[in-house]
Parts: sequence; structure tokens; C-alpha cells
Amino acid sequence: MKIYDWPTGPYPARVRIALAEKNLQSRVQFVTVNLRKGEHKMADFLAKNYSGTLPVLELDDGTFIAECTAITEYLDTLDGAATLTGGTPRDKGLIHMMSKRAELELLDAISLYFHHATPGLGPDVEIYQNAEWGIRQRDKALKGMHYFDAVLKRQRFVAGDAFSMADITVIGGLIFAALVKLPVPAECEALQAWDARMQQRPSVKNRLAMSAPTDAPD
Amino acid sequence: MKIYDWPTGPYPARVRIALAEKNLQSRVQFVTVNLRKGEHKMADFLAKNYSGTLPVLELDDGTFIAECTAITEYLDTLDGAATLTGGTPRDKGLIHMMSKRAELELLDAISLYFHHATPGLGPDVEIYQNAEWGIRQRDKALKGMHYFDAVLKRQRFVAGDAFSMADITVIGGLIFAALVKLPVPAECEALQAWDARMQQRPSVKNRLAMSAPTDAPD
Repeated sequence: MKIYDWPTGPYPARVRIALAEKNLQSRVQFVTVNLRKGEHKMADFLAKNYSGTLPVLELDDGTFIAECTAITEYLDTLDGAATLTGGTPRDKGLIHMMSKRAELELLDAISLYFHHATPGLGPDVEIYQNAEWGIRQRDKALKGMHYFDAVLKRQRFVAGDAFSMADITVIGGLIFAALVKLPVPAECEALQAWDARMQQRPSVKNRLAMSAPTDAPD
Repeated sequence: MKIYDWPTGPYPARVRIALAEKNLQSRVQFVTVNLRKGEHKMADFLAKNYSGTLPVLELDDGTFIAECTAITEYLDTLDGAATLTGGTPRDKGLIHMMSKRAELELLDAISLYFHHATPGLGPDVEIYQNAEWGIRQRDKALKGMHYFDAVLKRQRFVAGDAFSMADITVIGGLIFAALVKLPVPAECEALQAWDARMQQRPSVKNRLAMSAPTDAPD
């Protein structure tokens, strides 16, 4: 399998963490798509993913799977039982709900802030910006942090009592928040404590060190 | 189980279609949340779904599951094998990818157009509008129709050779498109032909006629 990504990207982090949680790192070759040069918006990449976003998984049969949730669904049952996306209907429902909520209220909101109300990836890539929309999304993300703080005050993980894809999505959100200097508010103590625990997980801690043959200088 | 929805809503349609495809209609009680009165943005409903969107599924144990994809994941394996969300890792990946793409590029884009660049649900509900963003999303949705047309030129269904959750999401998109008078362009013949086939499926055709005890006038 190949993963097209940008090593430090918050969305690529979601798939890197999932790969490590499933112990599948060694079966993947990483291919860097240069976000700063806008390679993800060029025809060659758009043929792999119409939406022009990273990461994308390429299977050995040439099939492309884009979107973090879709890639995580693929990886999670590749070698057996699901451990990240739920084993019962109720768990599947709750994990998908909380992961989607983490996109809507945190990760995607911060991404929109970054691309619309900051210089983002630079003027050559950000050819349309709507600053008012971006600022509004930043405020939504700050509210989202308080929401997830409240969730984590009453349970150990984002979707209940076990680590799941929903935690990974919130981790992606906080990675992006740090990049755009939007720190978790001090009063969100449960979210901060959970984040500190998450940063100690090997899958999270080592995500940038994953072997990346095609990233090597040559 | 209870479903909180608004019978003619495009997102509620996704879950109504999934319920019918799984033959679970008789196990559900519908509760109407009045979108026109903004009941989905009021505290009572926000306690059920932080994001303030319909539909929401309430399980008999009081658990709330929001987000169409999450609800569909729950329903799809409730009585046995998945038929809408994929039975193999590859199918799961492709179906989730195409369903998410149908949200991003069609359904969610039209929703943003409706709420931001048309009167939407009226001035009492649409307390913030960003018309420029809305218009841009309308144009994205029109491009999305051409994308799905190209997909359906080479395969019978949105995610391959079988009906799935991804078809349901595109159906939701075209239901919303019709509501906002954004017809499928004439040149999108494959998308139009697929839509005509979909409208003949009992799950799609009868979605508004689902028994809805709490909708009855009293």
C-alpha cells in the first residue's frame, strides 16, 4: 500500500496514528505530496482524489481511497476485528458520530480558519479566501474545545470508555490548533489532561518518525 | 427507537431511506422537530445533538446518535450483515469515501448555499449568513454534479456495482438540489438516468409516507 501525505499535516496524522494503532506501518510506503507547492490541487493528484485533500491510500490493485474516516474503516478490519471503529452497532454509531462531530466542530473548523483567515499555504495556493467565514470557524472551534472538555469530564475517551477513531480525530484537531496557535483554553482541564495522555501513546508520539522511504533525500 | 426529524428534509431522507432498505421502519417512532420554527437550535434539542442538526436517533436505552453516517452504521448491522456500508475492508473504504465526497461536493455544499445565499429557514433561524460563501458552495455543488455524472458513466452505483450508503447520500443531495431549484444540468445524462432509477426504489419513493405516529394531528 501507498499513503500520499504530508508528514506534518493534521489530517495525515489521523491515518498515521491509525496505521500505528493497527501495527501496519511496515506495510505502507509513504509518498510526499508537497502542500506548500500546492501539489494537492494539481491535475495529477486530483485524478487520485477529486477533492484535492490529503491523505490518500493507494491499494496494491491501484484503487485509491481518500478521506480519513474511509481509510480508517479500511485499515481497521484489514487483519481482523475492528478496534478503532466499533465492534457493535451501538459502538459503531457512537464512534462515527463523535468522529464526525470532531471534524465539524473542531478539525474542519480550524482548517477553514487556517485556509481563509490566515496566510494558510501562501498566496499561490490560497487563491480564494473568505476571512469572515474563517474567523467564524475559529470561534466555532474554540466552542468545540469546550464541548469536548465537557465530554471528557464524564468519560475517559471521546466516544466512551475505549480509545477509538473519534479520539484520533480530536487529536488531529488539537494538532491543527497548535499549528495555528489556537491553544486549548486553560479552563478546559479535562481536554488538556486527555491530550497529555494521548501524546504519550506511541502511535501519536512517533507519527512523524514513521519510515518514509520516498521522503528520504536522494 | 425514536427518530427526531423533519419529514421533507434532505438529511432526514437519508435515514428514512436507510430504514426502509433495512426494513426497520416499524421499529421506529418519528418525532417531528420543526425546522421552520428553529426548534433544532433550541436548548432542548441541542442537549440531544450538540451540532443542532437533524436527524437524530434515540435508542431505547436513551443513547442519542446524530449524523447520518453514524446512524446508518448503527442501523446497517442491527439485525445482521452490513448491506449499505460494506462487507469487506475495500468496500467499507470505498463506500465511506464516496459518501463523504457526496457530502462535501454536493449535499453539504447545497445546504450551505441554502442557509447562506437564500432566505433559508427565514430570518428568525438564519441569524448569520455569508452570501459569498453560499454562492461559492452552489458552484461547487454544480461541479460536483458533473463529477458524479462521470462516476456514473462508468459504474452503475456511486461506490461501484451495488447500491450503498453512498447512493443514499447523493440522493439526499439531489433532493436538496430540487428544493433549492438547482436542477441537474441536462448534459449530466448518467446522473439523471441513475436518479430516475433511484426514484423508483420503494425506499426512496415512499420515504415521506412512513408512518409517523407523533406527526398525526391530535
